[in-house]
Amino acid sequence: MEKRFYAIIVGIGPGIGSALAFQFAKFYPVVLISRHSSSYESIVTDIKAHGGHAMGITADASDPNSIDAAFGRIERDMHGANLALAAYNARGTFARKPFLEFKVEDLQANMAAEATIPLLLTSVQSSPRPPSLLVTGATASLRGSAFFSTVAAGKFAQRAVTQSLAREFGPQGVHVALAVIDGGIDVPWAKHIVINGGVEDGKLKPDAIASSLWHLHTQHRSSWTLELDLRPYVEKF
Amino acid sequence: MEKRFYAIIVGIGPGIGSALAFQFAKFYPVVLISRHSSSYESIVTDIKAHGGHAMGITADASDPNSIDAAFGRIERDMHGANLALAAYNARGTFARKPFLEFKVEDLQANMAAEATIPLLLTSVQSSPRPPSLLVTGATASLRGSAFFSTVAAGKFAQRAVTQSLAREFGPQGVHVALAVIDGGIDVPWAKHIVINGGVEDGKLKPDAIASSLWHLHTQHRSSWTLELDLRPYVEKF
Amino acid sequence: MEKRFYAIIVGIGPGIGSALAFQFAKFYPVVLISRHSSSYESIVTDIKAHGGHAMGITADASDPNSIDAAFGRIERDMHGANLALAAYNARGTFARKPFLEFKVEDLQANMAAEATIPLLLTSVQSSPRPPSLLVTGATASLRGSAFFSTVAAGKFAQRAVTQSLAREFGPQGVHVALAVIDGGIDVPWAKHIVINGGVEDGKLKPDAIASSLWHLHTQHRSSWTLELDLRPYVEKF
Amino acid sequence: MEKRFYAIIVGIGPGIGSALAFQFAKFYPVVLISRHSSSYESIVTDIKAHGGHAMGITADASDPNSIDAAFGRIERDMHGANLALAAYNARGTFARKPFLEFKVEDLQANMAAEATIPLLLTSVQSSPRPPSLLVTGATASLRGSAFFSTVAAGKFAQRAVTQSLAREFGPQGVHVALAVIDGGIDVPWAKHIVINGGVEDGKLKPDAIASSLWHLHTQHRSSWTLELDLRPYVEKF
Repeated sequence: MEKRFYAIIVGIGPGIGSALAFQFAKFYPVVLISRHSSSYESIVTDIKAHGGHAMGITADASDPNSIDAAFGRIERDMHGANLALAAYNARGTFARKPFLEFKVEDLQANMAAEATIPLLLTSVQSSPRPPSLLVTGATASLRGSAFFSTVAAGKFAQRAVTQSLAREFGPQGVHVALAVIDGGIDVPWAKHIVINGGVEDGKLKPDAIASSLWHLHTQHRSSWTLELDLRPYVEKF
Repeated sequence: MEKRFYAIIVGIGPGIGSALAFQFAKFYPVVLISRHSSSYESIVTDIKAHGGHAMGITADASDPNSIDAAFGRIERDMHGANLALAAYNARGTFARKPFLEFKVEDLQANMAAEATIPLLLTSVQSSPRPPSLLVTGATASLRGSAFFSTVAAGKFAQRAVTQSLAREFGPQGVHVALAVIDGGIDVPWAKHIVINGGVEDGKLKPDAIASSLWHLHTQHRSSWTLELDLRPYVEKF
Repeated sequence: MEKRFYAIIVGIGPGIGSALAFQFAKFYPVVLISRHSSSYESIVTDIKAHGGHAMGITADASDPNSIDAAFGRIERDMHGANLALAAYNARGTFARKPFLEFKVEDLQANMAAEATIPLLLTSVQSSPRPPSLLVTGATASLRGSAFFSTVAAGKFAQRAVTQSLAREFGPQGVHVALAVIDGGIDVPWAKHIVINGGVEDGKLKPDAIASSLWHLHTQHRSSWTLELDLRPYVEKF
Repeated sequence: MEKRFYAIIVGIGPGIGSALAFQFAKFYPVVLISRHSSSYESIVTDIKAHGGHAMGITADASDPNSIDAAFGRIERDMHGANLALAAYNARGTFARKPFLEFKVEDLQANMAAEATIPLLLTSVQSSPRPPSLLVTGATASLRGSAFFSTVAAGKFAQRAVTQSLAREFGPQGVHVALAVIDGGIDVPWAKHIVINGGVEDGKLKPDAIASSLWHLHTQHRSSWTLELDLRPYVEKF
């Protein structure tokens, strides 16, 4: 555990966010940001019980004031430590959404980036691994399907921002990458949803996703990945 | 001139919008929508002088009430006629933009689509050519470059919406397509900007773009294009 | 009819090749190259009957000597005329193919290009439209599907060659473009094959494809398309 | 070291091939296939000196008889062991190449796949990690640049084959993936070639590439990557 560095995860749930928290907590103290404390409380408790360091912050990523307050608190509580790793994991609901939500989601993507990039830049010289901003996308990052224009608009925009940030801040030493999650995720609340015929491992295991995101963080700066596709072995694509 | 059908162009300037107006006016009465009447007045006059039919409407495409009013007026003035062709041409400024403008631009894309798709659907049986919604994109539709995250986010989102609409409304007979304008445009106000070494035809001629968009409109429904790239012969890409 | 310029079509059948011949013959004398004279004889007769100019050449595009002989004959017979337009239309069979055929098909693509590019370059200054090399690809140009590795390898390779030639010879004035035919083609011998539920216009009409390829040839050099996707309005993609 | 499983690397040199050998040898006995014994001899010696298991086979991957003989020997020598991992690393020379070499290179890709896929399939139930066929591509896998049509044709074809094999054999449990190496590689013989201004880590370190390929092999089958891009942090793209 390197206490001089920490990780932030924006967007916590029982799936990817939780798996990222446990994965990152093996190496760094983790800060979990979510709208509801119920999303992170048990994770924080669990990490601490295993000797790790974790704190949760309740914030609405669509509200600039809320984000400002959250990062203000992070800078106070993490005084003397540097941000080594930030993951932005806003999955949203994958149903037809009212237009307003799209704007909010996209705003989140921008604000999370705006808030973390400066912190990551200050860690370039000292961080044990290249400071990283990792974003989780979806099938809709690459394809605008019928009836999903709003979801796809948000995910396409998120991919655009990720590419732009990678090209701007990569040469300065910050690794920005997008993981395109192309399939259903194996989360407790979706056990009843049958995907790929219900075959074993037909949904992405959150721990497997977290393992690949961690690999992105460990990549040597001479050999960085920008976009990583992830899908179950049985997925049609 | 088929008066039972008309065309709408959202976004008028001295470049692509103007060229589309003159191209479409050879076949249909045209409705030109812009924020400022100065953008369309001379075009309307010119088209009328050559025996065509044109009208201009001042509207702010980022304001739902303004768009509602514009389309209300169109339905009154065009009573009895059907929409055969709509072009959405919002080029915006290609400089680093404040985040707020991105939302506005994207909102425009959605509202223009929301307003025209129902009108185009009612023309499927009668229109002399497949009713079409044509959108003009840019290099940033396909690539998030450094420092252009806001532009790219808007153009990526626009491409996502275009794809989704094409997949939803194509099978119902409405041709939705994106023209990706990959280069500088030869407009009077940009004569001083040197692109591709200042070589002849090193910028896209608006008339040439209009010709290719018109081709998209004339494509038989058995053989439609979704995305059309356009660039000067000397462009590096 | 501009007799000082002519067109070549490599790959003639009852579908796209035939439609290209009739389309191009409205503007240029056409040279049709095929392995079997039976593929072009009736087309040549038909074009002549309508006042056009056409000649057929039997050649095996996979045999360098055969191609050399064919182009030798073209240069003799067309003495004084310039090549304005070449279309390379090798559809092949879209079944699992033995590996050997792949090499042959790819060889064709290269040889056709090698043979026509120099002729097209000499027409840059004089041709009424930008001299063009147009290639017809397929869904497999963009996607390697299960069981179709050989077809996809050939079509991917063809796309690579097309891109490279476009980037090399475009700035010299030759328009190289790929049309990606993404769907079943409505040819007499395939009437019994049901695609898209047998709906009207659910297969690409060869005339519609020819119309779009002709548009590519007419594009002003300030605004060229590199890759044009074409598919039926009801196609799932 | 799990002796019941082994790895094969086709294409050995002082760069990626060598790094893959050392990386894989930490976990499996490795079989190194190259045209010249001088390419693998010192690597085999080095791996053995560190307690690993390695053998070299001289074979010409473009000669079916040679490949048959090589795999015949592998099956004899590895009797009782199963293939867990095969890497196909044919970088070729990135200069303008005569057409004949392209065919050879592509042939290699197919034969290597044909020879290893059946062996990998038999390991699906027993292998400690999903049996994997990993292929190294290049910038030219995604882009046909001017003057590089032959290189790009080969790399595009290789990508097509990789996609097709992934879609065919992925659902059967074999992980097929392509690593797109987008930059110069830091090999001893290329020290004098200045890339990215000669900045530190401006070329891909072979060990870093090997680390990411190993990660692909360790991915859980619920979350597999098909295509992994790798480039230096300072690379323009």
